[in-house]
Amino acid sequence: MKSNPVVAVCGATGAVGQEMLKVLEQREFPYSKIIPMASARSAGKKVEFKGEELTVVELTEDSFEGVDLALFSAGGSTSEKFAPIAVQSGCVVVDNSSAWRMDDECPLVVPEVNPEDLDWHKGIIANPNCSTIQMMVALKPIHDEARIKRVVVSTYQAVSGTGQKAIEELENQTRRLMSGQPVVADVYPHQIAFNCLPQIDVFMENGYTKEEMKMVHETIKIMGDPTIKVTATCVRVPVFYGHSESLNIETQEKMKADDVRALLAKSPGVIVEDYPEKKAYPMPVDAAGDDATYVGRIREDETIENGINMWVVSDNIRKGAALNTIQIAETLIQRNLLRVP
Amino acid sequence: MKSNPVVAVCGATGAVGQEMLKVLEQREFPYSKIIPMASARSAGKKVEFKGEELTVVELTEDSFEGVDLALFSAGGSTSEKFAPIAVQSGCVVVDNSSAWRMDDECPLVVPEVNPEDLDWHKGIIANPNCSTIQMMVALKPIHDEARIKRVVVSTYQAVSGTGQKAIEELENQTRRLMSGQPVVADVYPHQIAFNCLPQIDVFMENGYTKEEMKMVHETIKIMGDPTIKVTATCVRVPVFYGHSESLNIETQEKMKADDVRALLAKSPGVIVEDYPEKKAYPMPVDAAGDDATYVGRIREDETIENGINMWVVSDNIRKGAALNTIQIAETLIQRNLLRVP
Repeated sequence: MKSNPVVAVCGATGAVGQEMLKVLEQREFPYSKIIPMASARSAGKKVEFKGEELTVVELTEDSFEGVDLALFSAGGSTSEKFAPIAVQSGCVVVDNSSAWRMDDECPLVVPEVNPEDLDWHKGIIANPNCSTIQMMVALKPIHDEARIKRVVVSTYQAVSGTGQKAIEELENQTRRLMSGQPVVADVYPHQIAFNCLPQIDVFMENGYTKEEMKMVHETIKIMGDPTIKVTATCVRVPVFYGHSESLNIETQEKMKADDVRALLAKSPGVIVEDYPEKKAYPMPVDAAGDDATYVGRIREDETIENGINMWVVSDNIRKGAALNTIQIAETLIQRNLLRVP
Repeated sequence: MKSNPVVAVCGATGAVGQEMLKVLEQREFPYSKIIPMASARSAGKKVEFKGEELTVVELTEDSFEGVDLALFSAGGSTSEKFAPIAVQSGCVVVDNSSAWRMDDECPLVVPEVNPEDLDWHKGIIANPNCSTIQMMVALKPIHDEARIKRVVVSTYQAVSGTGQKAIEELENQTRRLMSGQPVVADVYPHQIAFNCLPQIDVFMENGYTKEEMKMVHETIKIMGDPTIKVTATCVRVPVFYGHSESLNIETQEKMKADDVRALLAKSPGVIVEDYPEKKAYPMPVDAAGDDATYVGRIREDETIENGINMWVVSDNIRKGAALNTIQIAETLIQRNLLRVP
């Protein structure tokens, strides 16, 4: 194997970019150099990495010379423009935006679920949507065991999924409301503090939001099974970190709640937290900062022959974004696939 | 008809009791006297009604002499003890607790849905659980039109459903967190500020919470149809007023989203707010203080033959509690049923 890779973090000043740097450090990711990149607006800013200050470099067409791996989280249009340029320079891209997810040339990967899809990458690997990732981690073992036919999912999504400005908006609105002042909605179309917004991303023609349809389409691509049917309602809630999901699952084969618990307890990336007698179940404030996908409230749904209800929580910025991206990069290295074919 | 009734409000100092007084005033409910009642602890306190201060009377076994109508919202054990005593004195009870809801001798009524069940009351009429009421208002027209087979519901419930102390807990925890202080959970088993708690009421042996099973059983009783299957996941969110519900509905007959919209738009107690192009959909902060059950995000669910997804929001303290209770009383008067048979 050649020497450690030169790694670019594109969008290094954003909420996910910052977390990527933290995860690279925490997991002792092998590198020969880390180059934080961002748009002209953020270039020159400092970011911290292993106790040192790194200067953010402007992302341009020439940025990727000598770079082996680029981790993108700088928005869809930046990825659309710069990912192919990076690949042209021989750099492998793991992209956290939605730009390349449904592209047939790009694997869409959750390392615990479909690492084998990395084998056919052509330079760009897509990181799935945050709400899809945690659902996949929880559902894959069940699908392997009992074949999932249909999932009805309702989400409770944190503002950090929208980015740093949304975190500030929830903070500011909360502060104003607590002192009796009127609030201004800027990042979201409506007040998010002490409210629920049943809209994430834009509306599509079929009445669903793009976020809801991402969960439908990405599930099929990641599971590699077009027969799995997903219907979703995605809702923003006044939580800073951690997406929660209420899942109703219909399987081909019968699974008892205890079977699901035992199965998930030994599944990669999952922690089962399901002790009603102790009032212990997954919650976003507990999951924040953690790597695992937490599953609890596992119950048989008696309204159908083979039904299970469960509650799935994970840190949307870590497993839902930065961590999964870096786990993809780690898997590329392990499989000796960190090169443009 | 005899003269206007003497009305007791039992639990007059609580969140729902206070709202009952407000609703009685706003709707110009006919009365000859309003008597606020509460436990010894709250007796002597003042409550406002039509600009006047009324002194809260202690609720005892002798309280109901000469009272025609008692509106109870003082907790299950108070209702269990005092409702039969009230009926004994010739007083009709509309009870907001869960004590009498599943009793075969007590009708469980949402006036828009099953007013005819008032005909067989024997003195005690039960007001359904808040999350059930708004679901019933939205589902009854669909059931009449297309027969509902199954409902998968996930709730987003406001803290006011727990009472005044929970409102204060969310306020206090929020204030402390915003100034970087640790929080104490007192009313709820865990922090509610900036969090989601997938537990409402206590856990049952089957792993569901009591709140979730209320939605299952109360639906069947109110709809008068044991074939409707409901499976529920009930979650507390950091919202002060207004419960939201994500509903996935399977019907016998096909209904298009437009048909559902048209049907609900003309249904009693429902306001359809479903304009994705304007980012207009129901939200708890908008529904708070209102009487209607708001329905939006109406979409066909293509994963089953006859499926509909929708988002239902209502003020849990008004339609979910105080308003529905008083609408029951109004219907009793209209139907000349305000007497113990």
